[in-house]
Amino acid sequence: MKPQIVTFLIKCPDQKGLVAKITNFFYKEGFNILSCQQYVNVLENMYFMRVRLSSDDTKIGKVDFETKFLKIATPLEIQWSVKYDSYTPNLAIFVSHTSHCLYDLLERQREGVLDCNIKMVVSNHEKLRPIAEMFGVPYYCLPVDKSDKSIQEAQIIELLEENEIDLIVMARYMQILSANFINRYPEKIINIHHSFLPAFQGANPYKRAYERGVKLIGATAHYATADLDEGPIIEQGIERVTHDSTPKTLKHIGADIERIVLAKAIKCHLQSQIIVSNNKAVVFPETGE
Amino acid sequence: MKPQIVTFLIKCPDQKGLVAKITNFFYKEGFNILSCQQYVNVLENMYFMRVRLSSDDTKIGKVDFETKFLKIATPLEIQWSVKYDSYTPNLAIFVSHTSHCLYDLLERQREGVLDCNIKMVVSNHEKLRPIAEMFGVPYYCLPVDKSDKSIQEAQIIELLEENEIDLIVMARYMQILSANFINRYPEKIINIHHSFLPAFQGANPYKRAYERGVKLIGATAHYATADLDEGPIIEQGIERVTHDSTPKTLKHIGADIERIVLAKAIKCHLQSQIIVSNNKAVVFPETGE
Amino acid sequence: MKPQIVTFLIKCPDQKGLVAKITNFFYKEGFNILSCQQYVNVLENMYFMRVRLSSDDTKIGKVDFETKFLKIATPLEIQWSVKYDSYTPNLAIFVSHTSHCLYDLLERQREGVLDCNIKMVVSNHEKLRPIAEMFGVPYYCLPVDKSDKSIQEAQIIELLEENEIDLIVMARYMQILSANFINRYPEKIINIHHSFLPAFQGANPYKRAYERGVKLIGATAHYATADLDEGPIIEQGIERVTHDSTPKTLKHIGADIERIVLAKAIKCHLQSQIIVSNNKAVVFPETGE
Amino acid sequence: MKPQIVTFLIKCPDQKGLVAKITNFFYKEGFNILSCQQYVNVLENMYFMRVRLSSDDTKIGKVDFETKFLKIATPLEIQWSVKYDSYTPNLAIFVSHTSHCLYDLLERQREGVLDCNIKMVVSNHEKLRPIAEMFGVPYYCLPVDKSDKSIQEAQIIELLEENEIDLIVMARYMQILSANFINRYPEKIINIHHSFLPAFQGANPYKRAYERGVKLIGATAHYATADLDEGPIIEQGIERVTHDSTPKTLKHIGADIERIVLAKAIKCHLQSQIIVSNNKAVVFPETGE
Repeated sequence: MKPQIVTFLIKCPDQKGLVAKITNFFYKEGFNILSCQQYVNVLENMYFMRVRLSSDDTKIGKVDFETKFLKIATPLEIQWSVKYDSYTPNLAIFVSHTSHCLYDLLERQREGVLDCNIKMVVSNHEKLRPIAEMFGVPYYCLPVDKSDKSIQEAQIIELLEENEIDLIVMARYMQILSANFINRYPEKIINIHHSFLPAFQGANPYKRAYERGVKLIGATAHYATADLDEGPIIEQGIERVTHDSTPKTLKHIGADIERIVLAKAIKCHLQSQIIVSNNKAVVFPETGE
Repeated sequence: MKPQIVTFLIKCPDQKGLVAKITNFFYKEGFNILSCQQYVNVLENMYFMRVRLSSDDTKIGKVDFETKFLKIATPLEIQWSVKYDSYTPNLAIFVSHTSHCLYDLLERQREGVLDCNIKMVVSNHEKLRPIAEMFGVPYYCLPVDKSDKSIQEAQIIELLEENEIDLIVMARYMQILSANFINRYPEKIINIHHSFLPAFQGANPYKRAYERGVKLIGATAHYATADLDEGPIIEQGIERVTHDSTPKTLKHIGADIERIVLAKAIKCHLQSQIIVSNNKAVVFPETGE
Repeated sequence: MKPQIVTFLIKCPDQKGLVAKITNFFYKEGFNILSCQQYVNVLENMYFMRVRLSSDDTKIGKVDFETKFLKIATPLEIQWSVKYDSYTPNLAIFVSHTSHCLYDLLERQREGVLDCNIKMVVSNHEKLRPIAEMFGVPYYCLPVDKSDKSIQEAQIIELLEENEIDLIVMARYMQILSANFINRYPEKIINIHHSFLPAFQGANPYKRAYERGVKLIGATAHYATADLDEGPIIEQGIERVTHDSTPKTLKHIGADIERIVLAKAIKCHLQSQIIVSNNKAVVFPETGE
Repeated sequence: MKPQIVTFLIKCPDQKGLVAKITNFFYKEGFNILSCQQYVNVLENMYFMRVRLSSDDTKIGKVDFETKFLKIATPLEIQWSVKYDSYTPNLAIFVSHTSHCLYDLLERQREGVLDCNIKMVVSNHEKLRPIAEMFGVPYYCLPVDKSDKSIQEAQIIELLEENEIDLIVMARYMQILSANFINRYPEKIINIHHSFLPAFQGANPYKRAYERGVKLIGATAHYATADLDEGPIIEQGIERVTHDSTPKTLKHIGADIERIVLAKAIKCHLQSQIIVSNNKAVVFPETGE
């Protein structure tokens, strides 16, 4: 393979000698280990590793490499994924009426902070088309037929497949996707929920936060699962508020939390920092060179 | 009255000219306004004021003063309370097995940070007696008879009345008090709940936080009402956590949030910074001289 | 004047009866007091008020109103400013190479979060022109002549006056403005500094934060004064970091703090929430209707 | 050795195959790796590892074990330390007039949160003796002779050696220790400074924070070095403040940050989570079983 950085995400039942076995393998294949992050969940007896390799000094090809890795992975019951830096993932952003997360993601991608292609913006409304167009990104308005939501979902799926989408971002998309749709993209849909889950699941969290008189509001980025707002949490943020806040000011304060939390979660995903296990997200810190 | 600081807490329907009417009254009676904090809840059309007065230059007596204030308060539908600095409030602390909040409150009172008398510690267990005794505070162990909880509550009420208790602090007291008991002390019971409400109401919040995989944990101090964990929130705190945390480490991290949040809430109460309205707490900032 | 919201910012030496005198005046002139926020700095014997008035029920004209107010203000040594909601302030944004704050402000203005006109972007480089153009805002590239910086500053001043600019925002503008320039716009220039001041004043704060091994990084929005990074602080934000961070990742984390902190500070300024006194900024909370 | 948990802290120049070499060694000696945390500082080409081993299945003795480890460590230029859980470290706490950190540490030790013996409290004043005595800890009042500070330091050193002290905690000790004293205990003295360093180094940080008008205050726990307030930072905390704060209220708010930050730093030290390199502290997260 051409010289690049290769990132492995590994999980398996914990067992003696794992670190040595895995790192020895990469070492012998001629890779240089740039960083090796591990975590053991003792309560659940699970082992997690994120390892970043430089392929500068190896001659092995991708297929050969993965085949060989499979041979050590299978007996250890390792589940794994690998990301090659030479590949740039494709994103689709789903939106409805609210623009702040959309702006934020388009801008970060354009400025090189998010290493991905934003292939399209999908919405059930026309409203945000001008924003996508400012950034030169195709905008697909696909209204929902309330009598049969599956029609719109089928249209979306077609677009996703045509564009070889790797990650779907629900950037305040106000439609509930069917279990059928969501199960098709496991750990490939990131949603931003505008509360610190599990508080205020469901609709109108800021109004409910005002009514409950909370002193903190927040936002949560999580992988979407068929159970609404119950998927693995990637990142959460909060901000202090006071009795001075109204539902409207909470919404403004919250918008800033949402945009930051969503962008952080997407960055972690794109940099292969996340391993999901037992509906919880292990999120390794960024490792910098 | 003798020279001292007098703090009024006022709430009423919002109406034209309120500030001028109320401050004029204090001004004419010879008080100096040290600080006057206001808040208008426009959505609920309610007006709130906290005003701190110096009585150094007035000759008026307490009874006369309050009678006169009542005359302007009644037509304006003002609900109010007044605190004279010459009076030191009496506290009772309720505990079960967990010691960190108890230590914290005893120490803060002793060091002069909480301006109150801690008259007693009440528990359903013997365990924490040595701590109360270190600080020279009477400890009453009143076990709960599960067939009839009202027996213990009657014993507690007798102690509270004998000791003229002004504020009850549930410092990780693990019994659910009856509605009967709680309604007897409206806005006079502060509870610390070990989660950022409304998330994880009820039992075992740290275990549930671990299972949900949250990236933030918190604590909430609130006035106890007959609805468990639903009373007006006074203060909340949070701390970031990661996948590295276990229920045990979450409990340790949480203990520090609990102690700080509870102490802040009690201080706000003792300094008459809180007005409750519509199950929400208006908490005015501390004003310093 | 036409029905609108009028915001007064008032400061003066503290003295008996101030609240009553000022609020009585507005009351008698037929204004409805929407909110009245006060703060007394006891240590410096200064009184601060922010009062928002509805002019719906008054017939008085602006000139007449201000003349009358001056009559009560002068004997009380009141310094004041007034903002009429019917006027939309004009902004100029100064930038150099870094785009995140510029994007953020342009977007917030466009989405109606910042109530102002962004009349121009000024830079010493061409680099960010495409961003201003995306948003349809004029971009002036005015390179600095190092032998005589005053030439460029004179060009800028001309532009500012032509465009009747009310607020200058230094959104990571990497030139040091002359005392001459800055003193011309007192409390009218907001700068974002990429550290939690007073730590890391001056150049390269992220590199120095890395070298010092801090566990928190931050950003500070302040009014620019002739003393570099010494002006009144409006808002600060921080984020936790770990040893995992490099100067590069600190810069990315910091960029998000900067954009949020700068936008908050500008919003506070535009909503007339800030009074400066003794090089410190009193920032009243937002009051919502 | 008897069955226990053994924690290694390792640093060395980064080089190929390190992970495999080190973990293989432990693996072959019959240890079970409970957790293996690593960090590579790419900019400084340094490798850091914290590895926790269970000795349940090994027969090797301590001396033999360490001798063998030395053989692989030396060629790799590894600097290392090892902690055996069977040993409980001895602490000395230095104080002056301020009590909150002292209370906090005594209580945490007593409640089993800090796994150490607190062998003594040393002070230059009598004031806090009653607190040490409440907790049954010896209190040594050693006043400073201003004409020759070294006399008191010599007395302290004698006490420290008699009591085999492993860690000195400066819990708001208001004397500046000599370079001579400090250099004797490298990475064995933890100080709490009452500001977020590098802001407000030196005296009176809360007063200076008030005067600067900051919107955040903080505290910093660091290893003491001969350069005052310049040692490696272990932990920092902050709290938001407003213009309402006075130097006195800042001091109260700050006290809570100080106690939490200091306790966290000591816990990290006692649990062998910290490796210092190039005046920066690598702090590995707690790993729980």
